[in-house]
Amino acid sequence: MIDFHIKHLVVIGVGLIGGSFAAALKKASKVDRVTGLGRSRGNLEQALRLGLIDEIGADSSSVRNADFVLLAVPMGQMGSALENIAPHLSPKTIVTDAGSTKSDVVETARKILGARFSHFVPAHPIAGAEHSGAAAARADLFSAHNVILTPEPQTDRSAVESVYEAWRLCGARIVAMPAAEHDRILATVSHLPHVLAYALVNQVASQPNADTLFTFAAGGFRDFTRIASSSAEMWRDICIANRDALLKELRCYREELDRLTAYLETGDSDALGKIFSKAREARNNWLKNKL
Amino acid sequence: MIDFHIKHLVVIGVGLIGGSFAAALKKASKVDRVTGLGRSRGNLEQALRLGLIDEIGADSSSVRNADFVLLAVPMGQMGSALENIAPHLSPKTIVTDAGSTKSDVVETARKILGARFSHFVPAHPIAGAEHSGAAAARADLFSAHNVILTPEPQTDRSAVESVYEAWRLCGARIVAMPAAEHDRILATVSHLPHVLAYALVNQVASQPNADTLFTFAAGGFRDFTRIASSSAEMWRDICIANRDALLKELRCYREELDRLTAYLETGDSDALGKIFSKAREARNNWLKNKL
Repeated sequence: MIDFHIKHLVVIGVGLIGGSFAAALKKASKVDRVTGLGRSRGNLEQALRLGLIDEIGADSSSVRNADFVLLAVPMGQMGSALENIAPHLSPKTIVTDAGSTKSDVVETARKILGARFSHFVPAHPIAGAEHSGAAAARADLFSAHNVILTPEPQTDRSAVESVYEAWRLCGARIVAMPAAEHDRILATVSHLPHVLAYALVNQVASQPNADTLFTFAAGGFRDFTRIASSSAEMWRDICIANRDALLKELRCYREELDRLTAYLETGDSDALGKIFSKAREARNNWLKNKL
Repeated sequence: MIDFHIKHLVVIGVGLIGGSFAAALKKASKVDRVTGLGRSRGNLEQALRLGLIDEIGADSSSVRNADFVLLAVPMGQMGSALENIAPHLSPKTIVTDAGSTKSDVVETARKILGARFSHFVPAHPIAGAEHSGAAAARADLFSAHNVILTPEPQTDRSAVESVYEAWRLCGARIVAMPAAEHDRILATVSHLPHVLAYALVNQVASQPNADTLFTFAAGGFRDFTRIASSSAEMWRDICIANRDALLKELRCYREELDRLTAYLETGDSDALGKIFSKAREARNNWLKNKL
């Protein structure tokens, strides 16, 4: 493995993801100095108090002497964050991101970074985000979690190795794949369920007897809809950014629902039971294998 | 309130629900003797060891001297259980059930019980069932949970009061409404989410790259699909029993999805964000009010 050490890390967006990344590298003694940038002064001050960062950067020119920059901002701000830092990047600075979709980030970065694009390593740490902000950050957040890297053909190999090593030090499992494949996978297992959960809550909330309906909603409803308490802005941006893959999954899901609806209409108890059994078995196998 | 005391309670199906009902009434010292009936000898013996019941009944004729009978069997067995006990019921025995749908149970009971139907009180305790069997039973299962009673015009008023009181002693909140209304509400907040969760897991499991997809499924997927680990047989029966109301909800949900799909297709970020925000706010209000 490469001899990995960061002299100056700049984290843009010191929230759950950015803050935990900094905390993990600090804990591993693999970074000398961490500068934090972000929209919320209050959050940055908290990050400083918590020791996640060593200083608050004045502005985007703080990346000037950085050897490693992590963009951990919401998807909707990725473009402007890249534009802000682009003029200040040195040729060797490694830039990576933590965005939930990859094809659009790759295209945005390619356009904005120009010749610097070879040192941009697109990445997506798949870690839970029930809470947000610097206060929720912790050094072990990525332990045993997946991080997907989606380098392009022109991405510098040693930049990829550095980002790989940084996430490895965070305790993550790292997998590389093309951006389009990442987006298709996440559309199925993450973006689609979010849309489905928002849709169900909206359906209930739109009924004239919504209060009564909510009164009798119990634990199954609560868990099914947990992800509908996620940030609406963040998930709107993710869905729009990945809409081609997501639309394809929505069409598949609609076919699946149409099939189940047909079984119900004809009262085909056997066919319905077989699908339920197959799903139950698949989920239980998945849980067993995760352990 | 009435002076409530059960001399002889017969519980048919001593699982999570039946066992917890018996345990709660025993804890409240409101029952002298509990007889258990059921398909699984092993489960009944465990219920006996755990003190949920005092004896295992020989057969359905055990209800002969009962003053209170609880049917806590899967929906698919409700008809045969009623047929088995019908010839042995005395005119004053109160019979109630714990089925997840009510219109079909009411019709089945009306047909089978004839003149005894006036002493049948349809009920649905809405309590979680992640685990099942007598081993999972506990006296406080129904504490602060909703129980819906759906008496018919000809249901004996004192029978309703007794069943009301029994559930009150279990710590439950009791609400009465027509069976059809119960079925519509539960179709929306319980049966529909189950179908949606089974459908998503089936969609993932049916892909050629299912293993890869499951590898990157995380906490959101896990919670969204938790109810897809529920008993396939039980939920198939519930969906078939309540299929008219469920089909109506499925059609509504499809319209909701079509609307979201249209916003995605046209890239209408604002409209999408508004629905996500509305859903998020509705869910968070619901959680806040539940506390």
